[in-house]
Amino acid sequence: MIDELLLHRSIRKYKDIPLHDNKLENILNAGIRASTTGNMQVYSIIVSKDQKIREKLWEIHFKQDMVLQASVVLTFCADFNRFNKWCRFNNAKPGYDNYLSFFTAAIDALLVAQNVCIAAEYYGLGICYLGTATYNADKLIDLFELPKGVVPVTSIVIGYPDEEPHQPDRLPLEAVVHHEKYNDYTKESINQLYKAKENLEENINFIKENNLQTLAQVFTEKRYTLADNEFFSKKFLSAIEKQGFLLNF
Amino acid sequence: MIDELLLHRSIRKYKDIPLHDNKLENILNAGIRASTTGNMQVYSIIVSKDQKIREKLWEIHFKQDMVLQASVVLTFCADFNRFNKWCRFNNAKPGYDNYLSFFTAAIDALLVAQNVCIAAEYYGLGICYLGTATYNADKLIDLFELPKGVVPVTSIVIGYPDEEPHQPDRLPLEAVVHHEKYNDYTKESINQLYKAKENLEENINFIKENNLQTLAQVFTEKRYTLADNEFFSKKFLSAIEKQGFLLNF
Repeated sequence: MIDELLLHRSIRKYKDIPLHDNKLENILNAGIRASTTGNMQVYSIIVSKDQKIREKLWEIHFKQDMVLQASVVLTFCADFNRFNKWCRFNNAKPGYDNYLSFFTAAIDALLVAQNVCIAAEYYGLGICYLGTATYNADKLIDLFELPKGVVPVTSIVIGYPDEEPHQPDRLPLEAVVHHEKYNDYTKESINQLYKAKENLEENINFIKENNLQTLAQVFTEKRYTLADNEFFSKKFLSAIEKQGFLLNF
Repeated sequence: MIDELLLHRSIRKYKDIPLHDNKLENILNAGIRASTTGNMQVYSIIVSKDQKIREKLWEIHFKQDMVLQASVVLTFCADFNRFNKWCRFNNAKPGYDNYLSFFTAAIDALLVAQNVCIAAEYYGLGICYLGTATYNADKLIDLFELPKGVVPVTSIVIGYPDEEPHQPDRLPLEAVVHHEKYNDYTKESINQLYKAKENLEENINFIKENNLQTLAQVFTEKRYTLADNEFFSKKFLSAIEKQGFLLNF
């Protein structure tokens, strides 16, 4: 099973095969065994199968076709709404309209999401995360009619793979692991740690296709630009506040 | 292996046995296979074994003894510092000093953390998350000398279990899963979904020990209070900003 972790790669093309409710239930049951703060389970999972909703999700997730092709889309939300209601119905005054509570709930939701992915892969299914869930959290809130206390933090697709992509590279382990203190990077260590990545044929082509000089420029000028990040930061922070998690006191 | 997910429970008492570097390396290698945004790997993992550092961590993590007893403490950080340096050394201007980038990096870090936990359990080890990492992120930043761009988002302990706790309850699956739209809760549905939890002997005792009327009050008045949440929210938001992720534009 550690092999399953080691062999993970995201799948972006799917066969047109539905996922049995039974299998999905098993996967979700494995999901909710993930650790959760104080056993509060301050998260919710929205299951999307309906074609019309999927078309709206396709728009929201930057028109990635796997949103339509995969068997199911799951949206994981930080959710204090259910817990707050439980408190109010039980003569207790919830104090969870703040940033720490949002982040706690986001952690809960993300650990469940990762468990769900591993369980899905155990069943021979493929998964892919949709980072666009935070970019357009406001639109997901409208689509799913999420009440106060609920904020989407990530989405995944699950389905039967219709491709066998090679595994993407990773930086060497020592690039991301520090012992006792943070060992900050020098120009030399950065060059050393990123050398293999920069020399991959696909990345060299990536630079050429984009008419740029370095791989880093592909990220800063094409894939994850300052303008996009600032635009979507504002939108995401507004959504967090609108859903009742205060950022100022 | 889905059994391993299904059988998870957190371990809070550990045997005094060191963890072999080899095994830790295997676990971390499984960790970094988790999905990561754009394959940027915007996270770092701090490994703490040193006794003096562990004593400081024990203070930071609310004096939970497992921080001293377990074989190792891992702190998972959202980390754009390495990526930013790589950009700057490669004639690219990083645009990651914003909230979306922080949250993207936090997601990356949390998916790795959950993979690490599952890999550790595969090796017969126990794990426990330390929610206190966000409460005292500022102190962890000082202790580990984290540069700008790096924010701790969770910590775990890993070690050889010295207890066999029963599995904690979970809400029924239908409590946390919604189909197509968010199905908001009524007083009746909340009562129904939380009934089994409220009737657990340990929870009934919990109410008595705390001299309260309802289980929800144990959470709002003792475990996760408004005053604590507001205090730690301010501290965490300040740490995020101090580390260079702007919350206002």
